[in-house]
Amino acid sequence: MHIESATQEQLIEWEKELSAHYKKICQHGLNLDITRGKPSAEQLNLSDKLDGILSSDYRTADGTDTRNYGGLVGLNCARELGAEMLQVPVEEVIAGGNSSLTLMYYAVLNGYLFGFAGNTAWRELKAPKFLCPVPGYDRHFTICEQLGIEMINIPMGANGPDMDTVEKLVQEDSDIIGIWCVPKFSNPTGTTYSKETVGRIAQLGLVASPGFRIFWDNAYSVHDFGHPINLTNIRTATLENDTADCVLQFASTSKVTHAGSGVAFVSASQANLNSLKAQMQAMTIGPEKVNQLRHSRFFTEYTSLNEHMRKHASILRPKFKCVLEHLHNALTDAAMGTWEKPEGGYFVSFNTLPGCAKAVVKLAADAGVKLTPAGATFPYGEDPEDNNIRIAPSFPPLEELDTAMSVFVLCVKLASLRKKLDMA
Amino acid sequence: MHIESATQEQLIEWEKELSAHYKKICQHGLNLDITRGKPSAEQLNLSDKLDGILSSDYRTADGTDTRNYGGLVGLNCARELGAEMLQVPVEEVIAGGNSSLTLMYYAVLNGYLFGFAGNTAWRELKAPKFLCPVPGYDRHFTICEQLGIEMINIPMGANGPDMDTVEKLVQEDSDIIGIWCVPKFSNPTGTTYSKETVGRIAQLGLVASPGFRIFWDNAYSVHDFGHPINLTNIRTATLENDTADCVLQFASTSKVTHAGSGVAFVSASQANLNSLKAQMQAMTIGPEKVNQLRHSRFFTEYTSLNEHMRKHASILRPKFKCVLEHLHNALTDAAMGTWEKPEGGYFVSFNTLPGCAKAVVKLAADAGVKLTPAGATFPYGEDPEDNNIRIAPSFPPLEELDTAMSVFVLCVKLASLRKKLDMA
Repeated sequence: MHIESATQEQLIEWEKELSAHYKKICQHGLNLDITRGKPSAEQLNLSDKLDGILSSDYRTADGTDTRNYGGLVGLNCARELGAEMLQVPVEEVIAGGNSSLTLMYYAVLNGYLFGFAGNTAWRELKAPKFLCPVPGYDRHFTICEQLGIEMINIPMGANGPDMDTVEKLVQEDSDIIGIWCVPKFSNPTGTTYSKETVGRIAQLGLVASPGFRIFWDNAYSVHDFGHPINLTNIRTATLENDTADCVLQFASTSKVTHAGSGVAFVSASQANLNSLKAQMQAMTIGPEKVNQLRHSRFFTEYTSLNEHMRKHASILRPKFKCVLEHLHNALTDAAMGTWEKPEGGYFVSFNTLPGCAKAVVKLAADAGVKLTPAGATFPYGEDPEDNNIRIAPSFPPLEELDTAMSVFVLCVKLASLRKKLDMA
Repeated sequence: MHIESATQEQLIEWEKELSAHYKKICQHGLNLDITRGKPSAEQLNLSDKLDGILSSDYRTADGTDTRNYGGLVGLNCARELGAEMLQVPVEEVIAGGNSSLTLMYYAVLNGYLFGFAGNTAWRELKAPKFLCPVPGYDRHFTICEQLGIEMINIPMGANGPDMDTVEKLVQEDSDIIGIWCVPKFSNPTGTTYSKETVGRIAQLGLVASPGFRIFWDNAYSVHDFGHPINLTNIRTATLENDTADCVLQFASTSKVTHAGSGVAFVSASQANLNSLKAQMQAMTIGPEKVNQLRHSRFFTEYTSLNEHMRKHASILRPKFKCVLEHLHNALTDAAMGTWEKPEGGYFVSFNTLPGCAKAVVKLAADAGVKLTPAGATFPYGEDPEDNNIRIAPSFPPLEELDTAMSVFVLCVKLASLRKKLDMA
């Protein structure tokens, strides 16, 4: 079945067949969900040793009683874990609470209210703007939207964001004060930024407005499925360009241990850390150190980070294989969409024919398969081409995922045919 | 020794004697700290069962897997604990992360950036102001200072803030958009607001600007030393006056279980909760639910909140007794200062003669006893009378506290005499 080379009669025939099939499926009363990048219960089980790991010894090796107040930047042993995940020196890491998203919010707020490292607060600019490689992570965009920071779409390519456009915009408009990046196994495309892209991003500080900051959300730094993919170190690259103050890096153990009950990290130059600390000092007496100690013990006494991530990979691999096989078997040479084949991370990004994404999501929903809302991967929820859908294979059991994907590809075919036949 | 009825010669003689004594103590190389309201190791031990309490069962009674993402307002079983601490309905509670200070920061930020419940954002006012009963909690003041919210001192009396002044100011100045209250065992005076005071506070919403909010930091709601002190319920009082949207209540388990690794709560009307949730939704996917579950299990399976707090009380009582005995024995009828005799909470507030607080803190520091910096209990760190010192007896072992208090009363005498003799 190739939608472009088929005759009108064939298309009509196909549409009829698939509609009949779809109707039957709708009667199955399915209730499946492949919306969010949540770890499965099987993955979460890997970290259940966390509770009880302290054996009533709440002190760190250096004698800190983690049960009491204090220590704004987190425990050293927790910061070391962050340093390992981000490949940065431990002195440049703050170990925070349970959410890197929260640390990102704080950081955007810091730039917005106070200005980083002595630079103008963004709220004092005429129209502060962030560059947003798309498709991207909806929660990044929500932060900007809430604070009234304008967002500009930047197309994602195979090597990362379209750097020609990024460089041009940053140079032309001094109100551009940030860019969101998920540099490894990007959410949702699975792209890892190339060495050249990272190099060019590291040079943005040479032409951007002084308060410009790169939000380097390295959420999937250790989430490789098989052979490790190497991401060029942004810190090193900025140091070479004397632009290290332009980068803020984030990571967390949320998709490493227990989602939402892990430890989050921010890493930055001392000037930026000082800005963050000044702000945090009014917000909190310190992070949840007991949980930080648990994580530190877990990754020294119980397992290593690498070994642990290999266990995750072996659970995730078959699920991604399932998704990709469905797409391959049903849609190769059909000209009904394109997709990425990620080697890590949490998502498969699928592009329908232009103007079909909403229709696919609606069809799937009516058949009992919940997909991430079309448009969610774009600022303001507006996908200008209406063609991107984010598939999250991690959470459902393999059997459910298999069923959900059968429905998905059917919906893609049906929506494509109806679009082509102008029936939509 | 009475400083007012003594002759000049007696004063000179006393100063000499005490100076000699002080010099000797300075040679002891003491290193004692009674600065912050931290629980002692003995108190923290009471909650060590928290780690391991889950026995690999991470699900709530209603089946929620606490290890995964989701649930912005926290677990129901955790919200119930907050509802018990604040004596409010569970539906009006959000259970958050490890710090009620952070929730207060979020709430001030909410009013400042967005405005609560549809009211004008405070940043759009000409000069937004908070009323600050003094002496008070330094970290409250730091939040306002960081956001550029002006602070106005309100004198604390035996029944709470001076309500005549509060009412007058709130009525006169529509830029007054908040008041900080620690209504039970107030930090640092130990005062519990009287029924009349709570009633008058509940009526502020009738005359205040529409966006006005009462920050009711009920940090010591269950921290009675002996027979329970009854604080009038602010929620009930505001409901009677149709001003329930004016109150935001806060509490946490930080001084109940492990300090800084507990669960924090905010309680408010649905209109205010909606404002908070809209903001938090951009900040986080949800709070640390595993720790919430631990706390819920701890207070159902292991102990009750009341029983647990009685254990804290029996550890704290002798320490407060020690402080009060030193003050009583050394300073009764000396006219060198006044102090409170709290029946709960974490502090003893001591007022030196005017202009002596800094001198006492300096003398004590030089003798190796660290006190909370003079002025810390006032906005901008400025105690207009330079007379308030906050004593925090909880953390040091009794023996150390005993030594520290001997030094403290000596320093009070010395500073008072030198002031009187105009030697300071």
